[in-house]
Amino acid sequence: MPTADWSFATEVTVRFAETDAQGIAHHAVFLVWFEVARVEYLTAHAGGYQRLRDEGIESTVVEVDVRYLAPARFDERLVIHARCVDVKRVSFRFEYAIERAETGETIAEGWSLHSIVDSQTLRPVRMPAWLLEAIAAVEAPA
Amino acid sequence: MPTADWSFATEVTVRFAETDAQGIAHHAVFLVWFEVARVEYLTAHAGGYQRLRDEGIESTVVEVDVRYLAPARFDERLVIHARCVDVKRVSFRFEYAIERAETGETIAEGWSLHSIVDSQTLRPVRMPAWLLEAIAAVEAPA
Amino acid sequence: MPTADWSFATEVTVRFAETDAQGIAHHAVFLVWFEVARVEYLTAHAGGYQRLRDEGIESTVVEVDVRYLAPARFDERLVIHARCVDVKRVSFRFEYAIERAETGETIAEGWSLHSIVDSQTLRPVRMPAWLLEAIAAVEAPA
Amino acid sequence: MPTADWSFATEVTVRFAETDAQGIAHHAVFLVWFEVARVEYLTAHAGGYQRLRDEGIESTVVEVDVRYLAPARFDERLVIHARCVDVKRVSFRFEYAIERAETGETIAEGWSLHSIVDSQTLRPVRMPAWLLEAIAAVEAPA
Repeated sequence: MPTADWSFATEVTVRFAETDAQGIAHHAVFLVWFEVARVEYLTAHAGGYQRLRDEGIESTVVEVDVRYLAPARFDERLVIHARCVDVKRVSFRFEYAIERAETGETIAEGWSLHSIVDSQTLRPVRMPAWLLEAIAAVEAPA
Repeated sequence: MPTADWSFATEVTVRFAETDAQGIAHHAVFLVWFEVARVEYLTAHAGGYQRLRDEGIESTVVEVDVRYLAPARFDERLVIHARCVDVKRVSFRFEYAIERAETGETIAEGWSLHSIVDSQTLRPVRMPAWLLEAIAAVEAPA
Repeated sequence: MPTADWSFATEVTVRFAETDAQGIAHHAVFLVWFEVARVEYLTAHAGGYQRLRDEGIESTVVEVDVRYLAPARFDERLVIHARCVDVKRVSFRFEYAIERAETGETIAEGWSLHSIVDSQTLRPVRMPAWLLEAIAAVEAPA
Repeated sequence: MPTADWSFATEVTVRFAETDAQGIAHHAVFLVWFEVARVEYLTAHAGGYQRLRDEGIESTVVEVDVRYLAPARFDERLVIHARCVDVKRVSFRFEYAIERAETGETIAEGWSLHSIVDSQTLRPVRMPAWLLEAIAAVEAPA
């Protein structure tokens, strides 16, 4: 996955609390890092996740998939690349790649599928037009 | 702290995700275990934490203190002792001791101070009479 | 997935620390629950994960996939079903389903792919014969 | 605690995974944030925690105490102030205060006591001279 194809990137540093007894970042933490990237993507490009909540909408996680290519160590700086793809009326998908900041080695790839639901009923609702437009503006083909 | 003085005990087994790169349970996890014991205490003795929420009340954590005496290892079974003390009009305190299930060695001691607040305003409210009575019944001196 | 097809099941209760601001169990926690089931499976059927470590072997996570069907709430009891499939020379796959203990409703399904590595070099090694045999004995077709 | 008295500060943003069903950051996460500040303090002033590990030394947590003054919300930026105090031959203490980045309101205060141990035996050892000197240089009275 050439970096040029990613519309967003952010950084995290592996916390000691995120390591496990194998001396590496625990595999469940990668979902937390994906979420950090997703939240910052929405802040950068679409008014933030809070704007969704202010309209009585929540995004829920429908499916996730992570492929672990190499371990992440304590105090290591990581770059999380993210992009939003497959935007549909009631769902959208994010893709991610995590690299070591120092070497650029890709250590994990993954994606997550989300649906848009009403905060109260948790039933699927249509994605707001402003969100569709904000994502389209970011992810438009060159 | 002789075990006879504790009014409640429950067990947890150290999860792999709870360990860190020192090969032991991470120190922040002890607060999660204290909470597990507190929730089960309320279930056993006072109708459960949900009964509080059903009345529009939440308990919040005001202060915690943990003394770590020995490390807990992956897959180790631990006994968490708990008791509720210093019950006042708007606050209560829990005390805890964590032992290895196999040897009885105490590996941590601690306490947490809680206040009772309105779910909506988060302002302190009086503890419900039924909760005071339930705790008094459990913690009454012999 | 009929329950009869599962070779192992264990239970967890949703901890308050595992919930998020949507009022439900956070999606990353499902990977921790899968791991709890996997560890207990190995304890029940193959001498425990520590037996692997005693032989200088670790299992690493290569890929995970989770499909979230319904939310899990605070203090809810869940049954985690697990089975080991696709056992090969250097890898194996676990499949999982999570049900509400009370109603039997399936709330999540997933799988994880693992490889067997040397504890020191982290390079792939062959699965020990005793582990292959232990899994074959459990997962044998009727 | 006037800000002028703090020798170090870093920032975190509250992650969605760190919130709980009360809609606020879970109280156990504050210990993780304290640790993030401690690790960055050592990186900034004393060659990093890895330098300790390279010398066959680990720091362990002996006691922690946290006073929660106000809740932290999802996506809120927080400043964690830290300083190292009470440096003795085999132990040291960190103090912390957490403020909202936007308003400067203090939302938590706490401290942690640590001992220096041999990585292999986990027995207490004397603090290395270079660490004593590095901390003394930072925390010297004006």
